[in-house]
Amino acid sequence: MTDTFVVVGGDAAGMSAASKAKRDDPDLEVVVFEKGEWVSYGACGLPYYVKGEIQSLETLVSVTPEEFRDERDIDLRTGHDVVAIDPDEQTVTAESKSESDSDSGTVVQPYDHLLLAVGAEAVVPPIDGTDREGVYTLGSMSDGKELREYVARTRSGESLQQPDRGPACRYLEDCTGPVGIVGGGYIGIEMAEALAANGFEVTLFQRGDRVLKGFSEATSEAVADHLREEDVTLRLGAEVWELTGEESVEAVVTDDDRITVEMVLLGTGVRPRTGLAEDAGIELGPTGAVATDAYRETNLPDVYAAGDCAEAVHTVTGEPAYVPLALTANRHGRAVGQTVAGTPTEGGDIAGTAAVKAFDLEAARTGIIDHEEARAAGYEPVSETIDANSRAGYYPGGGTVTVTLTADRDSGRVLGASLVSEYGEGAVHRSHAIVGALEEETTVFELENYDLAYAPPFNTTWDPVLVAAKVLGGTLR
Amino acid sequence: MTDTFVVVGGDAAGMSAASKAKRDDPDLEVVVFEKGEWVSYGACGLPYYVKGEIQSLETLVSVTPEEFRDERDIDLRTGHDVVAIDPDEQTVTAESKSESDSDSGTVVQPYDHLLLAVGAEAVVPPIDGTDREGVYTLGSMSDGKELREYVARTRSGESLQQPDRGPACRYLEDCTGPVGIVGGGYIGIEMAEALAANGFEVTLFQRGDRVLKGFSEATSEAVADHLREEDVTLRLGAEVWELTGEESVEAVVTDDDRITVEMVLLGTGVRPRTGLAEDAGIELGPTGAVATDAYRETNLPDVYAAGDCAEAVHTVTGEPAYVPLALTANRHGRAVGQTVAGTPTEGGDIAGTAAVKAFDLEAARTGIIDHEEARAAGYEPVSETIDANSRAGYYPGGGTVTVTLTADRDSGRVLGASLVSEYGEGAVHRSHAIVGALEEETTVFELENYDLAYAPPFNTTWDPVLVAAKVLGGTLR
Repeated sequence: MTDTFVVVGGDAAGMSAASKAKRDDPDLEVVVFEKGEWVSYGACGLPYYVKGEIQSLETLVSVTPEEFRDERDIDLRTGHDVVAIDPDEQTVTAESKSESDSDSGTVVQPYDHLLLAVGAEAVVPPIDGTDREGVYTLGSMSDGKELREYVARTRSGESLQQPDRGPACRYLEDCTGPVGIVGGGYIGIEMAEALAANGFEVTLFQRGDRVLKGFSEATSEAVADHLREEDVTLRLGAEVWELTGEESVEAVVTDDDRITVEMVLLGTGVRPRTGLAEDAGIELGPTGAVATDAYRETNLPDVYAAGDCAEAVHTVTGEPAYVPLALTANRHGRAVGQTVAGTPTEGGDIAGTAAVKAFDLEAARTGIIDHEEARAAGYEPVSETIDANSRAGYYPGGGTVTVTLTADRDSGRVLGASLVSEYGEGAVHRSHAIVGALEEETTVFELENYDLAYAPPFNTTWDPVLVAAKVLGGTLR
Repeated sequence: MTDTFVVVGGDAAGMSAASKAKRDDPDLEVVVFEKGEWVSYGACGLPYYVKGEIQSLETLVSVTPEEFRDERDIDLRTGHDVVAIDPDEQTVTAESKSESDSDSGTVVQPYDHLLLAVGAEAVVPPIDGTDREGVYTLGSMSDGKELREYVARTRSGESLQQPDRGPACRYLEDCTGPVGIVGGGYIGIEMAEALAANGFEVTLFQRGDRVLKGFSEATSEAVADHLREEDVTLRLGAEVWELTGEESVEAVVTDDDRITVEMVLLGTGVRPRTGLAEDAGIELGPTGAVATDAYRETNLPDVYAAGDCAEAVHTVTGEPAYVPLALTANRHGRAVGQTVAGTPTEGGDIAGTAAVKAFDLEAARTGIIDHEEARAAGYEPVSETIDANSRAGYYPGGGTVTVTLTADRDSGRVLGASLVSEYGEGAVHRSHAIVGALEEETTVFELENYDLAYAPPFNTTWDPVLVAAKVLGGTLR
């Protein structure tokens, strides 16, 4: 008799696992339950869809439901909400939400192996007015659809009785907006770009004193300066108290001000979906996400968790961390698929690596940069920040790459880095060198001697990463 | 009494050593002899100077002789040709070539520590006619100056009685030229770009069957295709027999053809300058360059060699290799300076990493790609080549990154890689990830799990480097 592998959740982790398991073991029966209609989509592309650089939501889908069913022979059941797991009986119960009665109903599906890949949901801050019209989050394809519709409607003048205005509008006085964005993380910044490009006057509210708080202060400052150059109004250290208005949102009320807006986007982070797991007796870890071992197996045998609902071990601290990002979901999902198909596969730790484009800048971060966090992990962190040319000084074009590098004083071990440059000048791809250093527990003295590629159109003889290592190495010596 | 550190050669390795030694130990007396007038210049920028993207040779100089003398307190003596080393007496003999009699003469300079940093010289192939007018090499600043003058003179019509024609000329029928380039390495390809951009009709002669032979075949093919797109005529597998002409060169004669040219650039590699070392009893290594230990010390105590005249240990093979490139010269020069100033410093191995821009493409290579070379080093090489999007498939712009990754079958160790993409799409900076993997003896299975940065404007969820690791890992499993 063939085994059945049941996957709950049809996005990155779930579909990677399903595809890999079926490819490695074609005899395996693979059933995927997905609550919505969309599967295997690139949620990271949603801001660019809202911006208008991507023309259709379908483009974000890497593999269609039909392809999964017909070409990959996966029993994919969209519109099926899994409401319970019975680990003793090894079954899941799914409710079909189809509008046609014949398809609706409850399914009880036995499993031999189960993967929870239910993802995360946008956090809505506990303030009044978040349920008003005109308040959006950006976590799902339908969120993206609604936002794009809002942008198209407003830009075409339906709400404001103004003629169609293109991206150039933000340089004119009669701009669209104003709109508010709450939160200065990836989503907040990418959406500031998306909305400003469509002519909206954007105010970004950030509770802390800087945007991109997971990056270095130097990166945050460079991005903040650039946002201001792009006419985004930054309200740093602003606690949002309430979203007011009659029906639609009309103002963002902070501790000391009231700013008129026509729309608000909440970009205040995500939290793992854990209800289903908790109900089934699956343990959560210290981060509040589902705990797993190195093979993504939970405390229940043959029950795995991967992607945005699960935590993973941090490369530098060795402790559980919750960093819900696309690559981890893909990698860990794929590892679970491979494990279930018979080849136990770990899928690796996470280094908290992330990249973001902010208008004409690009930034990346990896590892541990924050000194408090590093000390909590038993390190004595030392950081240096350097500015270096992105190309040889004499080579046309290019700009500055700012690198913050953090290492442990005693061992010299590289702990983390944050980089920022103009878009196209390589801050993000340069972070690849540091990720390797984190994974391999490289010291800053070893990193300094990395034989990195050099030619005048690409860097200075010492790449900015090496300059940072050299300077930090000097400090540590 | 203070020690004296004598440096022979005032370019990357020499001036890095001099500067670092003096900075770390200001009491040290530092004397540098440089045969020519230029010091500390970026020879890698010469093709861009000839192209016209860099306006003056001075721009290529990172620190001027005056700055070395006045600000860094280094006794820099340009126009001084060191003709002998006496290791028993610990002296060097230099001949000053100044035209004013008072400055000319012979100097005998004692040393406590000596660094040979005399660099490499362009190889002139042993064929007839290389001494004709119109035959150039590109190794030194004066070579660059002559070539730029040739380009300016020809473009302005002095030699051809044609009006000034800009880069667009190569799309017209009455193009400048034709010119020949012998050698399809970095210099050959960069100069093809430089000359074509100035309206010359370029034919590139390559003895082997592909350009950039140190790169993977896939990279070579991509670059060759692109050169042809840019109207460079490639003559692969063409053995050049002779350069003929009355006074100036008029034709390149190959084994089966005779191609009319008005100018020839020889880009047939470089060889280490070793005469001075050999005369002094300094041993050469198996590569024919000066042999050193990990601290760049030669067989003579307190006599070091670094930069393009010396060999170094290869990261992957553990054997001596000769890869004369700028970063190594800087890094090893600096390490010698630090060692001489009292802190013994190794400066690290070399991975044979190199980058090149070829018109609108960029390419990088690192480690061991060639299977014969890998087998000679005791590995059983397996390679895979993949094409991947440089940005998310749905994100505007971008192109293809082609990655060739080589690993050892038994251990899975990553041995080398070759990458190519459009310029600006990150083949070169992505190679940084592989360099780390080589230095740390990472397996392809570990590389596959590197938590590299991802966002749609920068890569697919699995960066092309990870895709290559995944595919190669699949082959090895």
